[in-house]
Amino acid sequence: MRENDLIRKLRERLRDPAGVVGIGDDCCVWTPNGSTCLSTDTIVEGRHFRADDSPALIGRKAAGAALSDLAAMGAKPVGATVALTCPTRWDALAVMEGLLAECERHACPVLGGDTTGGEELVITVTVWGEAIANAHGPSRLVTRSGAAPGDLLVVTGPLGGSLASGRHLRPEPRLAEGQWFATSPYVHAMMDLSDGLAADAPKLAAASGCGCLLLPNQVPVHDDVPVMSDQAKAACCDGEDFELLVAVAAEHWPALQLAWPFPRRLSTVGWLVDQPGAFRENSQGRVVPLEWSGFEHT
Amino acid sequence: MRENDLIRKLRERLRDPAGVVGIGDDCCVWTPNGSTCLSTDTIVEGRHFRADDSPALIGRKAAGAALSDLAAMGAKPVGATVALTCPTRWDALAVMEGLLAECERHACPVLGGDTTGGEELVITVTVWGEAIANAHGPSRLVTRSGAAPGDLLVVTGPLGGSLASGRHLRPEPRLAEGQWFATSPYVHAMMDLSDGLAADAPKLAAASGCGCLLLPNQVPVHDDVPVMSDQAKAACCDGEDFELLVAVAAEHWPALQLAWPFPRRLSTVGWLVDQPGAFRENSQGRVVPLEWSGFEHT
Repeated sequence: MRENDLIRKLRERLRDPAGVVGIGDDCCVWTPNGSTCLSTDTIVEGRHFRADDSPALIGRKAAGAALSDLAAMGAKPVGATVALTCPTRWDALAVMEGLLAECERHACPVLGGDTTGGEELVITVTVWGEAIANAHGPSRLVTRSGAAPGDLLVVTGPLGGSLASGRHLRPEPRLAEGQWFATSPYVHAMMDLSDGLAADAPKLAAASGCGCLLLPNQVPVHDDVPVMSDQAKAACCDGEDFELLVAVAAEHWPALQLAWPFPRRLSTVGWLVDQPGAFRENSQGRVVPLEWSGFEHT
Repeated sequence: MRENDLIRKLRERLRDPAGVVGIGDDCCVWTPNGSTCLSTDTIVEGRHFRADDSPALIGRKAAGAALSDLAAMGAKPVGATVALTCPTRWDALAVMEGLLAECERHACPVLGGDTTGGEELVITVTVWGEAIANAHGPSRLVTRSGAAPGDLLVVTGPLGGSLASGRHLRPEPRLAEGQWFATSPYVHAMMDLSDGLAADAPKLAAASGCGCLLLPNQVPVHDDVPVMSDQAKAACCDGEDFELLVAVAAEHWPALQLAWPFPRRLSTVGWLVDQPGAFRENSQGRVVPLEWSGFEHT
């Protein structure tokens, strides 16, 4: 399909929200309400999905992974743009249908983009969002850098086995949960888990000028992790879970957990420490260097 | 270079502007001043540049082509994100150096991005900007859709020969000119010329619910177009000029031209008509269907 034909088909599919200039101009145009956040996420054939994965699921993953970055700030989605580099052997429209359905599911209108040909399928999704105001407190966006030594590390769901099971193609961006966390003064920092807890927790800690200690036995293990494997290590290292990792004031943890309105279980998986670096408890209860690496996309 | 090493080197290179969360969090965060516009642009190896082109110039092109979309709205750049899919045979850092230098030249901080490996070099740049206020008038962003039949079509410089000469790797986004046009009430619509006047003028006309008539002999021909070629056709069809195309109220054209403060020559190249479609004057002065297609990237 030629670029102009694809764009024509997509324009028929899309409707711009009121008050917004979307598809078809040099830029999309909107008027923000206060602080705005934006993230760009790319997935590439052979690295983030396989050549025999479903085009619609690949599109879904591209959108879901990008939206997960908005969830990680506690933001409400405002819009998205898509850059699609698509070889003729792929069904570009099927990829875009999966992507658009995922954006629609999260009330995030696709307002622009660019399509090109290429030798391998590459999808870049840029999403932007805003802080929400609600009855629980003032609106804000939650960075990785607001935590302090002593803060608990909490995750929003079981981890591990995402790549092997194919769950990585069906990310569930925790947008509602992220927005709820953003209204709590007890939540000091937040990020989404894409490279695995063992890789991501040290990033949050470093951004906050701390180290971290993980308790591998406390990490909830996803059903996708095989029973005969090292389950705690899989939960810490497999990656692509797209759950939230939150740093919480330890003294207010019971109050936060009691107020939590979602069915997903919150789990404490460690805390931040003043010594730089990443540590874990070993099976004897001793603090040792973490020495587990998460999943690094090449 | 592994993704984490590249990101570390880039972080050393980048400094976030005051009041902004940039590289290193899940999203970048900024607080907009009123209407905001955003565009995403992708360039792909073998389609928008060659394997033997300079990595720094390729990075420059990726940034310049995206910034040209902000120029086309009359916007001032606020920030950019970069998604780089880079095979190991390419020097990712050299590409990024060229890209960052171009962004710095236009005071557009790079605030985030994503890097992945891949089989071919793909660079997606997302830029956003804001309407500027100045002494000449109120701030606004200029879409493609505000023009009316009778409006003159004006271009900001000579066209043609960009691809053959290699000039396409050194786009000059007309940001200052675009911002100036946005302050004039006589400017009704604007876009940048990426696919050639013969392809782009009909897009502006259609977005405004009009047709267009081009006068090929009025189109200024760039020195890059060979003398022995069909120069008027080259100027209309070659593409990748990154000049601005503006629809101007014909009755105010002398006033606008007199007020124009830039050294670049403005040229009238046709006007909008109420009959849908694209037309040109032929060598006998007759109106005929345009029947020239611009450059379409595959």
